[in-house]
Amino acid sequence: MRALIVSADFFEDSELKMPYEYLRKLGVDVDIASLKKGTIIGKHGLSVDVTMSLDEVDSKKYDLLLLPGGEAPSAIRKEPKALKIARYFFEQKKPVAAICHGPQILISAGLLKGKIVTGYKSIAQELKNAGAIYRDEEVAIDKNLITSRQPSDMGAFLEAIRRCLNIGIHEKNTQ
Amino acid sequence: MRALIVSADFFEDSELKMPYEYLRKLGVDVDIASLKKGTIIGKHGLSVDVTMSLDEVDSKKYDLLLLPGGEAPSAIRKEPKALKIARYFFEQKKPVAAICHGPQILISAGLLKGKIVTGYKSIAQELKNAGAIYRDEEVAIDKNLITSRQPSDMGAFLEAIRRCLNIGIHEKNTQ
Repeated sequence: MRALIVSADFFEDSELKMPYEYLRKLGVDVDIASLKKGTIIGKHGLSVDVTMSLDEVDSKKYDLLLLPGGEAPSAIRKEPKALKIARYFFEQKKPVAAICHGPQILISAGLLKGKIVTGYKSIAQELKNAGAIYRDEEVAIDKNLITSRQPSDMGAFLEAIRRCLNIGIHEKNTQ
Repeated sequence: MRALIVSADFFEDSELKMPYEYLRKLGVDVDIASLKKGTIIGKHGLSVDVTMSLDEVDSKKYDLLLLPGGEAPSAIRKEPKALKIARYFFEQKKPVAAICHGPQILISAGLLKGKIVTGYKSIAQELKNAGAIYRDEEVAIDKNLITSRQPSDMGAFLEAIRRCLNIGIHEKNTQ
């Protein structure tokens, strides 16, 4: 199983790091794509190696798209290739998990009309304007779309991702 | 709000690091106590600064006791002060969260008789022998006692801790 994280500089550190570590613990391979190869730096200073540029992403290799928040989504949402990746996951009904400002990328891709979602409070109105049904809850699950609001929702967000990937509770015992 | 993590060398890295980061995101202060001051090293190489020795712990300052797993609990369970700390939390009905081999400390403290618990599969029999009601589930919750089996249960474990601490979903928005 393989997950794709799409992010950029000024991501919210914990929203990339904690899902990354959790997915690896579940035995999921994780690639990180950004505007270009190299390193991206989180809002709080975390440095993360990028696996590939957006242009190099082969969406069909992945079972999950994960979109961390922070200020990264405002850059990512301008990238046509990023929107194309998001649309592919929706078309294929593959799991997409977005937290905080991450859902902004899905707004720009025109994917949220009629979807039950949440996101950081400052984007609640933008989500509604995009036709989404906004829920002020730690995690909103609409079929294969999982959204959360903020780092303090992380427990519920990770658990929803695990269930959506249908990873059995005994599949990986890494301790 | 303040949490106490009790661990030692050869802790399971993610079982200390992820709860630590999550609690900090929730706005909870976190101290780490071990056999002695200095640094403890995880099984996978993570280096963590210890706040204080077990002897210096003033249990009444804390709202949560967190016991990560790995090989650390086998050392911690031999320490009378660690068992005393665990007993204090139970007497005061304060939340205790233990994952993986962490519940071994509670076994040694004689605290699990009749309690609904889980833990790493290799300690299932030991838990039953201690009088616990063993559940093979990602998280077992018995009043203020929260137990999980392994790193892949982390989402459910963290969410149960947040609920037990009754930290409102809007209390801390750190992004």
